[in-house]
Amino acid sequence: MTIPTDPETGEFHRAPNAFTSRITADGRDGWPVEAGRYRLVVSRACPWASRALVVRRLLGLENVLSLAVADPIQDSRSWRFTLDPGDVDPVLGIGFLYEAYEKADPTYDGGISVPAIVDVPSGKLVTNDYPQITLDLDTQWTALRRDGAPELYPEALRDEIDAVNADVHRDVNAAVYEAGFATKQAAYEDAYDRLFARLDVLSDRLSRQRYLVGDTITEADIRLFTTLVRFDAVYHGHFKCNRHKLTELPVLWAYARDLFQTPGFGDTVDFDHIKRHYYQVHEQVNPTRIVPKGPDLSGWRTPHGREELGGRPFGNGTPPPPPPPQEAITSVS
Amino acid sequence: MTIPTDPETGEFHRAPNAFTSRITADGRDGWPVEAGRYRLVVSRACPWASRALVVRRLLGLENVLSLAVADPIQDSRSWRFTLDPGDVDPVLGIGFLYEAYEKADPTYDGGISVPAIVDVPSGKLVTNDYPQITLDLDTQWTALRRDGAPELYPEALRDEIDAVNADVHRDVNAAVYEAGFATKQAAYEDAYDRLFARLDVLSDRLSRQRYLVGDTITEADIRLFTTLVRFDAVYHGHFKCNRHKLTELPVLWAYARDLFQTPGFGDTVDFDHIKRHYYQVHEQVNPTRIVPKGPDLSGWRTPHGREELGGRPFGNGTPPPPPPPQEAITSVS
Repeated sequence: MTIPTDPETGEFHRAPNAFTSRITADGRDGWPVEAGRYRLVVSRACPWASRALVVRRLLGLENVLSLAVADPIQDSRSWRFTLDPGDVDPVLGIGFLYEAYEKADPTYDGGISVPAIVDVPSGKLVTNDYPQITLDLDTQWTALRRDGAPELYPEALRDEIDAVNADVHRDVNAAVYEAGFATKQAAYEDAYDRLFARLDVLSDRLSRQRYLVGDTITEADIRLFTTLVRFDAVYHGHFKCNRHKLTELPVLWAYARDLFQTPGFGDTVDFDHIKRHYYQVHEQVNPTRIVPKGPDLSGWRTPHGREELGGRPFGNGTPPPPPPPQEAITSVS
Repeated sequence: MTIPTDPETGEFHRAPNAFTSRITADGRDGWPVEAGRYRLVVSRACPWASRALVVRRLLGLENVLSLAVADPIQDSRSWRFTLDPGDVDPVLGIGFLYEAYEKADPTYDGGISVPAIVDVPSGKLVTNDYPQITLDLDTQWTALRRDGAPELYPEALRDEIDAVNADVHRDVNAAVYEAGFATKQAAYEDAYDRLFARLDVLSDRLSRQRYLVGDTITEADIRLFTTLVRFDAVYHGHFKCNRHKLTELPVLWAYARDLFQTPGFGDTVDFDHIKRHYYQVHEQVNPTRIVPKGPDLSGWRTPHGREELGGRPFGNGTPPPPPPPQEAITSVS
């Protein structure tokens, strides 16, 4: 995989998402919410895609929005369905995600990213706009979600959630990549400094409250979680985000374990996919492609003590039931 | 720097040391112990050379065996005296350590390593045989050592020290390199497994006694220390020795801090040289040559509580005075 960086500054910046149509309750973009019509394509390695995995689980959308899980190792044609029999996604009938991009726009020659939502009847990609995908699952799919589904983006808290999300995106979600893909020392150090300064601010905030915004789980927690759960497994070593391990930051480590142990979070996490993807795909960072045996991950199931801070994880709702058997994580971590 | 690995197995094995003459009290190899005659060449980045730095400090040999510190960044001609005015060692009058190797053997075309001891009058390398160098400093230089110098290789304990050293060499000192330089997964995993299994055995041993052998500091502690002090700074991330950080192994972390805070140990350690050497020289492992800002090293000076285990660090001897001013570590860590 080629990682584009600025030859002058050595900085990495994520490319914008090309397909920004929205799937909405009113179908204003031509893509109405509809049970069984769309397929969510993810890699369990990818933090951006994993947000959608968590939201889909919490809202109980498994039966109305089906799931394709790509191989964590991309080849030069990007994400592949090589985990499926015959190396073909059984619903979309394609071997590579790029085929859905091509059906949507035969002239497209940009990057192929997950999460992606594909229209099953036409085989066309609808959207790869990851920040909007989860917000739309939160707010547009309400008619189809399970009984007891939580409110992940409640109207009254949206300004605060948006503000937290902006800081977390810039200084955490994106900064770990900017540190890891930097090709010049100054670019790396800028990202590292922003990352740990923000983690200190978030630690302080979360020392007083169980969740980032309000007293229930929201979109803000999901976006922070998908980076934190990868921190020690890949960002600490591979991306040189090594002031401390997550396990050395007591508040954030307890917060991350609390979420991990909440139904809908840890049951979406595949550490094997995560480690193999980062260490084997980014040959510019890890030319040997050797995958570290560590870290010891046994701590994720230890008591976190965050109940003492109060909070109602699902608000007036309830936890989701276990994942469907075909979506259970089976790889060894 | 080219790192030689076996193309079949992906294993890295350290080359044997080519120059094995000994400097002894009786001068049996033609190199008698003599004040002011020899120059010890080290890199403060190198764990093998750093053993000699610690022994020289503990025994108070600074005034009889002078010190040349090479730049932590080798070029294609290996170790350089580019930290000195004019890029030339002021005593040996050479710009590169290889020149002393050539004077000793004009036909030599093997590796150039530190520690190295050079005969100042002739400019010839005497020895680069690191395991023997410290043992000879311990036992052959007794007439020249300071008052109160400890016994680092006492006769009565040599069998036990040798046995511990053999295990520590194979599974710790050498294994971190074998993990980091491996080019195949199986070779890496073999080294990783041996390393952490041995660290667990050593943790158990050191939970009951302050030092590895007997109740005083010996050569065995020095050899373990120089790997442990580099663990979180370079081996954990750069060499993928990441089951745990040293800071997550309570017994070994306290043991390492105890030694670090003992005069003669921490005052030889230059974390800046260590980090820049590993991350900038091994381009096969870290092609961007970016040096991580972490880890946070402030913990090295925190209380370790090991006094409770008893032990007499210097036996019937005394701690060394501070290093000579010209040898004080000035680089920022």
